[in-house]
Amino acid sequence: MKKDIILVEGAGFCFGVKRAIDIAFDVAKRHKDGVFTLGPIIHNPQVVEKLKELGVYPVDDISQKNIETLIIRAHGIPKEKLIEIKKLGCEVIDATCPFVKKAQNLAEKLAYEDYQVLIIGDKEHPEVKGILSYAGEKAVVINYAQNELTELEKIPTLDKKIGIIQQTTQPLSKVKEIMNKIINSLDEFEEIRIFNTLCNFTSKRLEETKKVAQEVDLMIVVGGKNSANTTQLANLCRKIGVKTYHIEDAQEIDKEWIESAKKIGVTAGASTPQWIINEVIDKIKKFIN
Amino acid sequence: MKKDIILVEGAGFCFGVKRAIDIAFDVAKRHKDGVFTLGPIIHNPQVVEKLKELGVYPVDDISQKNIETLIIRAHGIPKEKLIEIKKLGCEVIDATCPFVKKAQNLAEKLAYEDYQVLIIGDKEHPEVKGILSYAGEKAVVINYAQNELTELEKIPTLDKKIGIIQQTTQPLSKVKEIMNKIINSLDEFEEIRIFNTLCNFTSKRLEETKKVAQEVDLMIVVGGKNSANTTQLANLCRKIGVKTYHIEDAQEIDKEWIESAKKIGVTAGASTPQWIINEVIDKIKKFIN
Repeated sequence: MKKDIILVEGAGFCFGVKRAIDIAFDVAKRHKDGVFTLGPIIHNPQVVEKLKELGVYPVDDISQKNIETLIIRAHGIPKEKLIEIKKLGCEVIDATCPFVKKAQNLAEKLAYEDYQVLIIGDKEHPEVKGILSYAGEKAVVINYAQNELTELEKIPTLDKKIGIIQQTTQPLSKVKEIMNKIINSLDEFEEIRIFNTLCNFTSKRLEETKKVAQEVDLMIVVGGKNSANTTQLANLCRKIGVKTYHIEDAQEIDKEWIESAKKIGVTAGASTPQWIINEVIDKIKKFIN
Repeated sequence: MKKDIILVEGAGFCFGVKRAIDIAFDVAKRHKDGVFTLGPIIHNPQVVEKLKELGVYPVDDISQKNIETLIIRAHGIPKEKLIEIKKLGCEVIDATCPFVKKAQNLAEKLAYEDYQVLIIGDKEHPEVKGILSYAGEKAVVINYAQNELTELEKIPTLDKKIGIIQQTTQPLSKVKEIMNKIINSLDEFEEIRIFNTLCNFTSKRLEETKKVAQEVDLMIVVGGKNSANTTQLANLCRKIGVKTYHIEDAQEIDKEWIESAKKIGVTAGASTPQWIINEVIDKIKKFIN
């Protein structure tokens, strides 16, 4: 029986992730005795393992080790942490994604110009923690999913200047919904300034995944279980109503899934490397034949 | 039979109208042979008539007369008109409402900084024509009531920087609704900057009128038939479902209206003077007794 496999256009590494890994490779080549990244360079355990073989090691506590060169990961880090690192006197190489950097810069600009900054995103995510650190003391993270819009009522400065930015990987539809809710909650305001800090690559991947999910009866979503954008892709597919599995690598695929499906879609998060996607597709093909 | 009359708090002259009339009085005192205003100084024919007795005359065509001193009315005028007047060499006294002036200044600033300016308001209103003249060539007036939101789709620069301001007398609820629709219509954007150019006096008057309209069975709305904010008050009362009459002065009141009502509310637009409101109340009282 013939079965179709459709790979979503733009699945896998995004621009910021590619860039961070390239930087890590380059730096590792120059330092024969190893370099360090503060936290995992990207949210994918397989890539982090591969990089270890090349001498790139993630660390959480920089004070314990004698570090010569430190790479800032793609998600960025809080401002205070950066100041702390620079005090250590080691060489700092910034692999923060330029989209995240833009959000950090805008957060800092808005706070400096006395806006009440609102960040649409997940406050537990390292990217958001980093952006928040630049957004001033009054800044608030809004995540509709967690019903935090009620928090808005408690902000005393919300009738003045409001600046809104977003975690780069949020879907535009959710951002619009939250912006509408913020506007509707206002009895008064002086100014609302909304900067688009969303990443085009993420929204394009979501859009293409949606298209494929609508025409298959099984979706395989490949990426780290701790990757927010991969989880988002899996949730989107489930919402559409298609049977969906979120896996980290080809080993996890069950023969039964493939046997009971006619048309299979494959997508992958921004931190999933091409070789893992290839392995997944090969495994699916093997089960079909 | 006892009947209640409730006068809405804040009915009548607003800050900008009071200021414009005070300026006209002052200037008229200094010029024994009369001064001119470009268009009626405010939207109330009775006040304009009274001012004529004091030597303040509205003109539409300034080129025909030998004008020494010209007063700019409360609603403001288009930028080109101001330049034209200044070329005539006459003394120009600006009685533009400071709230309108703020909207004009923000329109100019946004256009200068390359925002696509959107003005929420009635494009036929002189205030909006004035603001529009400062908002750059690409500027568009949006009036939900006239279904002009479809116009948004035709604007090629809407995916870039958008600046939004409002006609000062628009109700906040309508402005929020239109802002939501603008946000929902966007597939992409770079920045959205919304300045609140609404007049507090107008929104307060609308709010207080709403309260009174909900507890009476007849509303008398006093103000010029060409006054947008008075018409807005009348529409608000009708929407609530209370029997409503929009009148310009006490002469228009019909005895039958009063006889069939138990509780009567009175409100008045921003350009309605206190003496007209007093006459209206006296007339109602006369019909009651």
